[in-house]
Amino acid sequence: MGLDPRTQRSRSELKSTASSLLASLLLLEGGMFSPSSPPAGLLEKVFQYIDLHQDEFVQTLKEWVAVESDSVQPLPHLRQELFRMMALAAEQLRCLGASVDSVDSGFQQLPDGQTLPIPPIILAELGNDPKKPTVCFYGHLDVQPARREDGWLTDPYTLTEVDGKLYGRGATDNKGPVLAWINAVSTFRALEEDLPVNIKFIIEGMEEAGSVALEELVRKEKDRFFSNVDYIIISDNLWLTQRKPALTYGTRGNSYFRVEVKCRDQDFHSGTFGGILHEPMADLVALLGSLVDSSGHILIPGIYDQVAPLTEEERKLYKAIDLDLEEYRKSSRVERFLFDTKEEILMHLWRYPSLSIHGIEGAFDEPGAKTVIPGQVIGKFSIRLVPHMNTSVVEKQVKQHLEHVFSKRNSSNQMAVSMMLGLQPWIANIKDNQYLAAKRAIKTVFGTEPDMIRDGSTIPIAKIFQDSIQKSVMMLPLGAVDDGEHSQKEKINRWNYIEGSKLFAAFFLEMARLH
Amino acid sequence: MGLDPRTQRSRSELKSTASSLLASLLLLEGGMFSPSSPPAGLLEKVFQYIDLHQDEFVQTLKEWVAVESDSVQPLPHLRQELFRMMALAAEQLRCLGASVDSVDSGFQQLPDGQTLPIPPIILAELGNDPKKPTVCFYGHLDVQPARREDGWLTDPYTLTEVDGKLYGRGATDNKGPVLAWINAVSTFRALEEDLPVNIKFIIEGMEEAGSVALEELVRKEKDRFFSNVDYIIISDNLWLTQRKPALTYGTRGNSYFRVEVKCRDQDFHSGTFGGILHEPMADLVALLGSLVDSSGHILIPGIYDQVAPLTEEERKLYKAIDLDLEEYRKSSRVERFLFDTKEEILMHLWRYPSLSIHGIEGAFDEPGAKTVIPGQVIGKFSIRLVPHMNTSVVEKQVKQHLEHVFSKRNSSNQMAVSMMLGLQPWIANIKDNQYLAAKRAIKTVFGTEPDMIRDGSTIPIAKIFQDSIQKSVMMLPLGAVDDGEHSQKEKINRWNYIEGSKLFAAFFLEMARLH
Repeated sequence: MGLDPRTQRSRSELKSTASSLLASLLLLEGGMFSPSSPPAGLLEKVFQYIDLHQDEFVQTLKEWVAVESDSVQPLPHLRQELFRMMALAAEQLRCLGASVDSVDSGFQQLPDGQTLPIPPIILAELGNDPKKPTVCFYGHLDVQPARREDGWLTDPYTLTEVDGKLYGRGATDNKGPVLAWINAVSTFRALEEDLPVNIKFIIEGMEEAGSVALEELVRKEKDRFFSNVDYIIISDNLWLTQRKPALTYGTRGNSYFRVEVKCRDQDFHSGTFGGILHEPMADLVALLGSLVDSSGHILIPGIYDQVAPLTEEERKLYKAIDLDLEEYRKSSRVERFLFDTKEEILMHLWRYPSLSIHGIEGAFDEPGAKTVIPGQVIGKFSIRLVPHMNTSVVEKQVKQHLEHVFSKRNSSNQMAVSMMLGLQPWIANIKDNQYLAAKRAIKTVFGTEPDMIRDGSTIPIAKIFQDSIQKSVMMLPLGAVDDGEHSQKEKINRWNYIEGSKLFAAFFLEMARLH
Repeated sequence: MGLDPRTQRSRSELKSTASSLLASLLLLEGGMFSPSSPPAGLLEKVFQYIDLHQDEFVQTLKEWVAVESDSVQPLPHLRQELFRMMALAAEQLRCLGASVDSVDSGFQQLPDGQTLPIPPIILAELGNDPKKPTVCFYGHLDVQPARREDGWLTDPYTLTEVDGKLYGRGATDNKGPVLAWINAVSTFRALEEDLPVNIKFIIEGMEEAGSVALEELVRKEKDRFFSNVDYIIISDNLWLTQRKPALTYGTRGNSYFRVEVKCRDQDFHSGTFGGILHEPMADLVALLGSLVDSSGHILIPGIYDQVAPLTEEERKLYKAIDLDLEEYRKSSRVERFLFDTKEEILMHLWRYPSLSIHGIEGAFDEPGAKTVIPGQVIGKFSIRLVPHMNTSVVEKQVKQHLEHVFSKRNSSNQMAVSMMLGLQPWIANIKDNQYLAAKRAIKTVFGTEPDMIRDGSTIPIAKIFQDSIQKSVMMLPLGAVDDGEHSQKEKINRWNYIEGSKLFAAFFLEMARLH
């Protein structure tokens, strides 16, 4: 999940569904479309079908949420539930007429020596018309752990509707969006309408556990399953607000560092040794203190060299975004941000790097007053990377900088820096056909332009697809900002789920037209 | 425990007991003493008695060590053992002919709401001759926890002799020294010799748990039990080396601080918020980094103003100390100290303040890579104070300094500094009679001048006596530097225990002469 402004609009303003209104208008005006619009009759039929069958769609979501497909806790009975979940989805896809391949993904080796089977990854396809574009949907059906006693007001595995909100684990992350895509496809099938695009699915069951086995499969299938794929669509994040749709075209990367300073592998007593040692904590605090200034500017030489310059076009994207900064600040419970304008805030979350110090391992971290001189301490910090920064360049810059700072201290301790994690940033070309198609579909269904957003966090899956199969990747979220992924109040709004199903259907039609 | 140089001398050099040699010489030379020496005959008799009865003395120590008088673990059955230990000691003192008062010390309120009885504090006295000086011995009979499975090679509560080392919990801390004092007194009684001094005891059973109830009792007894006390002797620390006796005349104090920086009481995700926050860790690292430079110099303005200037006389004390710096460095497993000479090392441990950063509470302190921006963090550091620094002055200086550094950062976070603990430094006048007497007694028993040492750590008890009853306090250790107080190999050497008993006896005689 990205930026969480929880922008509130009045409920009355939003109660009427823009897409239904639009569809009605189209019908009344007898299909008076501009030449570039999809046929009004088909769209109307599709939307009407989805509206009429929305309770069935919710029922299927309820059945899927009922499966405790928790991939995080390494328990054999939960792994069985994961297998059952994947089988349920495969069956559903077969009913759509798709050819389905449940790819055996081997075993997961846990740190404790335990071995657990990895649920199969589903590769499915529907349609193989070379004249149509092929769009591939990525989704996952595993969920975060949830227990009633964690603080849920409803049973997490019983989808429960309250005021139009469908509460349940996995409702928005990611079972709802996967089903919305399936709903869109099944609507064309039910209406016996030709599918405007060739459809592919890649659905996994280990996303919450780090997408074990996914990257390997994607690489292996590059020249087979993915050979004719034109576009990858991911719907695993959220809108920026509660009511305005968004399109995501970038995520920051992450270079996570540890810097260790060691005097000896045993602590000292501060009475017995204080005053004669190069204390590792003093060295570490100086190293960590050299990384970023009080305005958030990173002090590592060269770190901004690769940051993409801001274009005028890009600046406009930020201007257009609908964010109530004051509301966002309050809901974040922050006294004052580093910046005062919406544009600066969003840019520093999305298109500029940031450096955070996470903590120190090996020092005294408990309540109370322990008079210890830690003998060996490890600082942890990470840099969120943006286009066109590169993890290996950043790694070199960080190491050089820390070595320079450390050498000036003339300390007798040993210092070692390593990059624990290096995830590249991802950015899409928003002039790709699928972005244009998605924008038009959003306009059709929601009557508005989407917020063109990035995510300050790192979502490795987009970059994996982009790097492994070199196809255009788009993140098209359905859920509202307050959906509470991973929380004890995870939900998807019925409105988002149903309008999202329509959005995907409209997207198919727009894709076909742009092809 | 103070400085731990573990200086090694050759075993053969030391195998003959200096005191026995000296006593024999005195006998051979027919009592050819200088006029200021104590009568050779009596000293000889006393030393001979102690040598002859050493196995009995060790047996008593064995009986005392057998009592699991652990005051640290708040368990009712251990508290019972503590009561049994204090009763055993009271009985022993009564057998000496002392009048014994076991003062009820009430109850200890534990953080979990539990209430446990505090073992009585023993006030005992033997002799009330206004012509003699009155020396009061402080000791404690409670011990640190010990279990065989912690890594002990022998049962911690069965005193076991291996190569002249008596292993057992409490052997050196502090049952052995308490018994050595009792052995010295009982020797005079057994020989039916007049005690050269009036003897008092104050013996507690909660030292390892923070001397609960002691300070209050000391204050209360200021004009009663302590009214005629001339000198307080504590024997609860160690020599600087394995074989050379020491006299301790100072301990550093400690001002322990917490500095809290708070944005909100919840953490942030570094992807979602990194780049727009005044991150509490960045503020805290800057605050901690402003305290001390890489040469160990404290950067808080005014902090050195109250430090006593170094006199030429004092400088000589440091020169005289027998410390093999290279051996000390190796045994400490430190690559390089901040200073190159013995004198600088000892002065920076004993007579100059030091600042140590202990750690951070509230940040990420575990292995692995967590992408958290801690919302609220607490840094811990402390300053070891030396004469004539004062905790309340230091508190003010630290607060002013941190507020100044923080204000320059223009952070929107909240900062709060507080002194969690403020313990004053202690220093004795080494020209007091009891220091002179102890030096002479050491020369008689061990044939050498003592190392005149301080302790870099804080031992509040000396300061409590000095402040509460305004009497001269001396720390006269018996144990060798490698005695391993609190460790899984705690021991007292039979040699230290027996020669220590002689040392106390010789000290009584010297005190009487100097009075």
